[in-house]
Amino acid sequence: MKQYAIGIDIGGTTVKGAIIAGDGLIRRRMRVPTDTSLNGARILETVITIIGRLIEQEGGSDHVFGVGIGAPGFIDRDGTVIGKAVNLPGWEGMQLCRPVKERFALRAVAANDALAMTLAEARFGAGRGVADMVCYALGTGIGGGIVTGGNLHHGTRGMAGEFGHVSIDPGGIPCGCGQKGCVERYASAPGIVYWAREICETGRVEETDFVRIVRAGGDAVTAKLVYEFVNRGDPVARRVNEFVCDKLSRAVGITINTLAPELVVLGGGVMMAGQVIVDTVRKHLPKYSLPEMLKTCEVRAAELGEDAGVIGAGALVFDAAGKG
Amino acid sequence: MKQYAIGIDIGGTTVKGAIIAGDGLIRRRMRVPTDTSLNGARILETVITIIGRLIEQEGGSDHVFGVGIGAPGFIDRDGTVIGKAVNLPGWEGMQLCRPVKERFALRAVAANDALAMTLAEARFGAGRGVADMVCYALGTGIGGGIVTGGNLHHGTRGMAGEFGHVSIDPGGIPCGCGQKGCVERYASAPGIVYWAREICETGRVEETDFVRIVRAGGDAVTAKLVYEFVNRGDPVARRVNEFVCDKLSRAVGITINTLAPELVVLGGGVMMAGQVIVDTVRKHLPKYSLPEMLKTCEVRAAELGEDAGVIGAGALVFDAAGKG
Repeated sequence: MKQYAIGIDIGGTTVKGAIIAGDGLIRRRMRVPTDTSLNGARILETVITIIGRLIEQEGGSDHVFGVGIGAPGFIDRDGTVIGKAVNLPGWEGMQLCRPVKERFALRAVAANDALAMTLAEARFGAGRGVADMVCYALGTGIGGGIVTGGNLHHGTRGMAGEFGHVSIDPGGIPCGCGQKGCVERYASAPGIVYWAREICETGRVEETDFVRIVRAGGDAVTAKLVYEFVNRGDPVARRVNEFVCDKLSRAVGITINTLAPELVVLGGGVMMAGQVIVDTVRKHLPKYSLPEMLKTCEVRAAELGEDAGVIGAGALVFDAAGKG
Repeated sequence: MKQYAIGIDIGGTTVKGAIIAGDGLIRRRMRVPTDTSLNGARILETVITIIGRLIEQEGGSDHVFGVGIGAPGFIDRDGTVIGKAVNLPGWEGMQLCRPVKERFALRAVAANDALAMTLAEARFGAGRGVADMVCYALGTGIGGGIVTGGNLHHGTRGMAGEFGHVSIDPGGIPCGCGQKGCVERYASAPGIVYWAREICETGRVEETDFVRIVRAGGDAVTAKLVYEFVNRGDPVARRVNEFVCDKLSRAVGITINTLAPELVVLGGGVMMAGQVIVDTVRKHLPKYSLPEMLKTCEVRAAELGEDAGVIGAGALVFDAAGKG
């Protein structure tokens, strides 16, 4: 009886694969460093290798519904990569599903990695049982996904959920996308580092340990470092957190007013910082969303952490299988 | 055989009713001035009267699936009015469906009027055959609705689609909702009048006929008047249009980046101005949305005009009947 899905999560540094059970639990897993040479062709080889190994370990593919792939960039419903993915040069135009179908005679589906993460949280994580929710993926960039009436909203060519490019300040700093004031410039990991530097270097601040480290500069200054100091109570790091979460709340408030979700899930690498981001966003949200909507909308941290990618990729398969 | 729906559109000045055929065409129609006395109770009486007459004219309710009601404010899925509707004092807490069900033994469904309008355009208007679209209703306020995968997205308690309260400038003018810079303050009919006055009275502008009329002030200054002069080529009125549509484009751009729709429909009373608003919004949009998304997203004027309300209310019934 078919009961499992293979989930693949292609990231800028690692390709992860897992066999996912129908309850979202991981049965087996594997990870291989991402080889970005040869314009993405090597990545597809890695994907094929991982799938082969997982099937081998499982003793065949008889119990497998199919393969789901989550990857950076816009991914069309047929598995074609549209537009550029910053971390993966040459990724544009790749076809992710066809090679998998041809090699393993299995159903293959693909989606943007933040959409996959959203589906994982909706089916098996912080959003279990919630019909209308959104998920923000706070990482190197900011992505996201939307669930309406229990279904993942892919949007045209799978592009929905680009919360990172919601402009929260039309006079704000320019973004690589051509717009100004995109929330990604404030609340992604590099955004947090940028504003930590701004505040420590040009603001009038007391000289805390945090400020000394930031002023010394270099690679030591990461979003992780900022939030270590936030959680330790450093007043300047806390100011950075307030600044960043105020900007993030503007985008989240707009999302709430647009979609009236029951739940906003905050996930991605930045959320390793923990509950403080959820609490600070909640504090600022009343300025940026309609009171009636906020009353019925929760904000919660994601639950599946780094596994959300493979679990969500698996969930794409279960969804596709359920719909025939 | 059941084949018709009764659509009711409750507005601040008129209650409209119609019998809608399965192809969206209006078979019969009726309108009665809105009586806002007695905290909304009179409105419900009017609704009951209209339904009764339409059934009578139809020779009975044998062919009628049910009654759909579109009304201002947030309307819960069970027909309860949540929160205030500015034009209808005492409207909050009303139950719209129960009296209809009790009186006529017909299915009754209700939704916010902008959601109903969106569904009308999606099923029978500018969005026929489009799976993922949004509709902006530009009128006394700005409302809207979202269709994902062919289904109207109601959101929690029917509150989705509050595009009017998307903030397009966090330092902008305060809105009655408690936020700042809501796009409703710029591109609703009163918003357009406000900015026409601002530009004519405080800006450095040449003294055109338009400027003279606006400076004379009074009730003569309406959004309709502004757009009459825009369409006549008055340079200052055109400046007002550019200003207003630039702000509107910011909100539309955010909606596009969020949902990746195939289509944005602009409707509501303000759109009586015609194609000029669509064209100006299109011109400004590249500043405010991701190029890949904009490439696959059209902007079009609504097609159903003032009938969208009753047709959409009828469409709510067809949708509910289709889902059992």
